[in-house]
Amino acid sequence: MNEWQLLRLIQGHVPAAGDDCAVLPFGGTNLLLTTDMLHRASDFPPGTAPYTIGWRSVAVSLSDIAAMGGRPLAVVLAASAPDWEGLLPGVLAGAQAACREAGCELVGGDLDFSRELTLVSSALGETSRPVLRSGARPGDLLCLTGPLGRTALALRLSSRGELGEANRLLRFIPRLEAGRRLAAQATSMLDLSDSLAHSLHLLARASGVGLELRADSLPLVPGVSLDEALYYGEDYELLCTIPPGLFRPELGVEVGRAVEAGVWLIRDGRRVELSDRGWVHGPDAEGGTG
Amino acid sequence: MNEWQLLRLIQGHVPAAGDDCAVLPFGGTNLLLTTDMLHRASDFPPGTAPYTIGWRSVAVSLSDIAAMGGRPLAVVLAASAPDWEGLLPGVLAGAQAACREAGCELVGGDLDFSRELTLVSSALGETSRPVLRSGARPGDLLCLTGPLGRTALALRLSSRGELGEANRLLRFIPRLEAGRRLAAQATSMLDLSDSLAHSLHLLARASGVGLELRADSLPLVPGVSLDEALYYGEDYELLCTIPPGLFRPELGVEVGRAVEAGVWLIRDGRRVELSDRGWVHGPDAEGGTG
Repeated sequence: MNEWQLLRLIQGHVPAAGDDCAVLPFGGTNLLLTTDMLHRASDFPPGTAPYTIGWRSVAVSLSDIAAMGGRPLAVVLAASAPDWEGLLPGVLAGAQAACREAGCELVGGDLDFSRELTLVSSALGETSRPVLRSGARPGDLLCLTGPLGRTALALRLSSRGELGEANRLLRFIPRLEAGRRLAAQATSMLDLSDSLAHSLHLLARASGVGLELRADSLPLVPGVSLDEALYYGEDYELLCTIPPGLFRPELGVEVGRAVEAGVWLIRDGRRVELSDRGWVHGPDAEGGTG
Repeated sequence: MNEWQLLRLIQGHVPAAGDDCAVLPFGGTNLLLTTDMLHRASDFPPGTAPYTIGWRSVAVSLSDIAAMGGRPLAVVLAASAPDWEGLLPGVLAGAQAACREAGCELVGGDLDFSRELTLVSSALGETSRPVLRSGARPGDLLCLTGPLGRTALALRLSSRGELGEANRLLRFIPRLEAGRRLAAQATSMLDLSDSLAHSLHLLARASGVGLELRADSLPLVPGVSLDEALYYGEDYELLCTIPPGLFRPELGVEVGRAVEAGVWLIRDGRRVELSDRGWVHGPDAEGGTG
């Protein structure tokens, strides 16, 4: 069983799960609640600074709030490490800076000890109109909020010892403003924590549509290959669908459209099936079904 | 550095931390947000069933909502394990049952893999009148919602192989109803996740008062010693202070009173200082300052 299979299993058991955040109607609006777990070995390349670790731990949850079109209210962080000496001030400062950047506050946490550094952030948000993964309709345009490959490039730089630039790339800014702009137009949305290929399959499955991606319109971070953009993941841009009449260039980059069925890549004039794969955590981590 | 020292450090860095939950004014009321992390080695004795693990993981956060006098709205659970085979259905069923018992729902989560089983629950609640740790005044009565020693006894039974009864004791019911009843009367409150001795010190420090505990009035689970009740912890009863004129027996058991300064145990007619110690996680885990 790998991580994707686990997450599908939890959706079977927990009906409210399955979107970027849980949506809780409250006081005439909706509260959003999400939680994300990161581990030293699987989520942070060697050379990741404590400040970057703290920043990213919080930013992944804020990105889920962005993916619903929400406004963040607060974040709590639970973290354990073998030894906090020299680690704690940086992690807390990074987590607090990511919250401030997003216009909210780190309001609490739990700290203790474990063999591997493990961080879990939970973010609370609010929106009157949550954008789910399930609203895409054939004919909608497929849009992205920015170029892909940022984490793939960070890992390459990190392995070459270019740690300053690698850390800068790893401290991504959650697309909260873009998410709120899109909330009025988008029919479906998610954040690219997984690979673009897997995210397209998630969106297609949740909406009961197909999706067609045009390779030549895909924005890439300089130095990143199409394969890295398709299959690496952890880009934390927003992927959404917008009815053609509502699309405006300031909302994002148009990269394809929703169709009746299938997940397709159009490349060099040919349309091929895009397999459901990416970089997956877990013992049977071959990645998806493709 | 041990766990208590870590938690004091985080309170220095994160001003909103330091109570059982963060309090977030929202829409004419207050939202409550809390997170708790548990690990296989330090938090679950051998023989703890997956269902009990799931239950307890969620119950510890719901207990924090109870300690503010709050009503729970939802819980999310992040969890990692070396292998989920045979573990996941029980953990999820236990977590969902604890939520149902509390009148809320498990609405989402994150699951992945790590060397040690680690679970982090985050609970969201609401209350118009949060009860903080800081409101105790000299003269208030000190009260408890139930007998102490349940987890100490569970560990003893578990080490003897009496796993059925040990698991039953470990699946404590968060004192949400008691917390809501107390919300109108209590001047300060916290839940006994730590030892009673440490909790008394936390309450005294937060309120700027002293506390006097009468050993002969302390309710104990049958078979538990006074020392276990004072220093073991993980009882998850609520400890609070109530002005004498507002106390009614249905609110709890009166076990002492708030005084000007110091934390004291009255036993066999003598008043002795109660040291700030208990069972603490962490490399320098001698426990507190006493």
